[in-house]
Amino acid sequence: MLAAQQLSSVFPLGSRLNERGRLEVGGCDTIEIAREFGTPAYVVAEDDLRARARAFIEALRARHEDFAVVFASKAFPCTAVLRLFAQEGLWCDVASAGELHLALEAGFAPERIVLHGNAKSEAELVLALERGVGVIVVDNFDEIDRLERLVGRSGGAGQAVMVRVNPGVEPNTHASISTGQADSKFGLGVNDARTAVARLAGMRGIEVVGLHAHIGSQLYSLEPFRAAVGALASVGEFPAYDLGGGLGAPYLPGDSPPSIEDWVAANVETAHELLGPDKRIMIEPGRSLVANGVVTLYSVESVKRNVSTWVAVDGGMSDNMRPMLYGARYEVHVADRFGGSVRCHVTGKHCESGDVI
Amino acid sequence: MLAAQQLSSVFPLGSRLNERGRLEVGGCDTIEIAREFGTPAYVVAEDDLRARARAFIEALRARHEDFAVVFASKAFPCTAVLRLFAQEGLWCDVASAGELHLALEAGFAPERIVLHGNAKSEAELVLALERGVGVIVVDNFDEIDRLERLVGRSGGAGQAVMVRVNPGVEPNTHASISTGQADSKFGLGVNDARTAVARLAGMRGIEVVGLHAHIGSQLYSLEPFRAAVGALASVGEFPAYDLGGGLGAPYLPGDSPPSIEDWVAANVETAHELLGPDKRIMIEPGRSLVANGVVTLYSVESVKRNVSTWVAVDGGMSDNMRPMLYGARYEVHVADRFGGSVRCHVTGKHCESGDVI
Repeated sequence: MLAAQQLSSVFPLGSRLNERGRLEVGGCDTIEIAREFGTPAYVVAEDDLRARARAFIEALRARHEDFAVVFASKAFPCTAVLRLFAQEGLWCDVASAGELHLALEAGFAPERIVLHGNAKSEAELVLALERGVGVIVVDNFDEIDRLERLVGRSGGAGQAVMVRVNPGVEPNTHASISTGQADSKFGLGVNDARTAVARLAGMRGIEVVGLHAHIGSQLYSLEPFRAAVGALASVGEFPAYDLGGGLGAPYLPGDSPPSIEDWVAANVETAHELLGPDKRIMIEPGRSLVANGVVTLYSVESVKRNVSTWVAVDGGMSDNMRPMLYGARYEVHVADRFGGSVRCHVTGKHCESGDVI
Repeated sequence: MLAAQQLSSVFPLGSRLNERGRLEVGGCDTIEIAREFGTPAYVVAEDDLRARARAFIEALRARHEDFAVVFASKAFPCTAVLRLFAQEGLWCDVASAGELHLALEAGFAPERIVLHGNAKSEAELVLALERGVGVIVVDNFDEIDRLERLVGRSGGAGQAVMVRVNPGVEPNTHASISTGQADSKFGLGVNDARTAVARLAGMRGIEVVGLHAHIGSQLYSLEPFRAAVGALASVGEFPAYDLGGGLGAPYLPGDSPPSIEDWVAANVETAHELLGPDKRIMIEPGRSLVANGVVTLYSVESVKRNVSTWVAVDGGMSDNMRPMLYGARYEVHVADRFGGSVRCHVTGKHCESGDVI
């Protein structure tokens, strides 16, 4: 019996093995969830998500006055989750008309929505301008041409924009999710960013409020941030800086990314030092808000033993693409017979057809 | 002007550059399609699909009496495409309840549907038995347990099944789409397959009609087939053999997979030699039926030049996962300014925001 053991930090806060030896998430017995709702089932622990949102806000509030915690909604574009973060006072980062519609539907005030994207269509920009999103983060010169046409036409009150800077930093993460290196499709290099700011500053109906940088996801080291923030400072002084996201989330028992508190502290400290103490600081956590608040339940359909042992479940790429996209691995267990981690694709001796994992 | 030039074999049959220098597919001007329907747009050339279906059927008919050409519907699970292949007299291979519903909706007679899958749920098996699909291809022992329970219960007339054999063959293709090696999640090795046949043969309401093998996709060499068919022969003699699919489709101008005729000839020849002249031969082409019958149109939203040149279009993983999954590349052109192939992610000098590619 492992009921007395601590679950790894991969599980949602408050998870435990209950008296029957079953995994319990958010106060619910996962075997009962599988029976009631079928599998595959995403089990989302509301308390966990709220606790992490509050941890970000509290860590910032303790160190800085003017800030916004912006949920990178691509990490979990689900209305119920967005609604919960809207209630907690977060902002929302969207990167398409679809995500923008979800954010509005979930109750985010338009002025708390940040529109990203390196391929914003004219229709998406029109929608964002009409709804009055808080910030449009400009990524490239074609977008500036498009904005110039659209804003000139609408004669609106003044759309706040930031320029996305490509800081030329190589973070220590998987190449598939690294975005800050010089050879990136995202943002403009420091010189191009200065040109973009100058063009935007001269446009009627546009207000350049600051700069944005995001150097990649699943960062375990705080070092590359310093370089990225330094690049922002070199572009110029503005009222606001959006420092992006990228705080890692643990997926396997050995993983130990920085804590939310340490991460925010390092962000704020660097911003104070390199950008000044009185700027609006925006940060954009995504998976560090949601990755550990969710458990997916599958049913085992077959177990086959040849060179390897193959556990076939009732899910696949349609519910989790990360293993196929870049070899991501997860902590896996049989929900009612914990004991010995089961690695992705390869299971221990305890698993059989009919199990919920 | 390249109007006089031949388009590569990557394009649908009958494609051409029209008098205005624009790509025409299935008799339609692609720029006009983009204007009318927006982008991204999949342009499906019906005549091309019908011609390829007929090529398979004619190549088989010329060489063998009892055969079925089974469309591997995972290659394009779209009702309109399935309907067209049903009209052409193909059978349909499905690997989930969803695909089974699509096939039925498209008009395939249930007895022309083949149910595959290494993780068939009880609900999927029940559906297949109730609708009376032509063949259930049994993949593993857990499935046999399940079938035994279900068929015993229903007392049906006799469900035809095949056993999927893992022939232990390493085809020369990308590891991500190779399925025939000994260390595969699909099928049963030769010894296990014999055990499975013996168990199924003893079950009331089950008729073992044959064996199945599929060693992988995008095969350019005919060699590995011989080994796979040899493995089938070693399991035993049956009325029918499903030899799977795997014929490659060209994605880049230099690609030259075997022709449909050569492929079928090699299949039939090998089957005659190793399995006997009087067996039912089933083959399961997927992408060789559809990959070249479809062109996807995108609009260019921005072009950015830093270390590389980045062309951002209004599509991505949601409409084409192959580049992200295993680095697949395509032939790319500006639809109204052909001239010099544009490689995926990297464009030539001619491409700019607003172009349809």
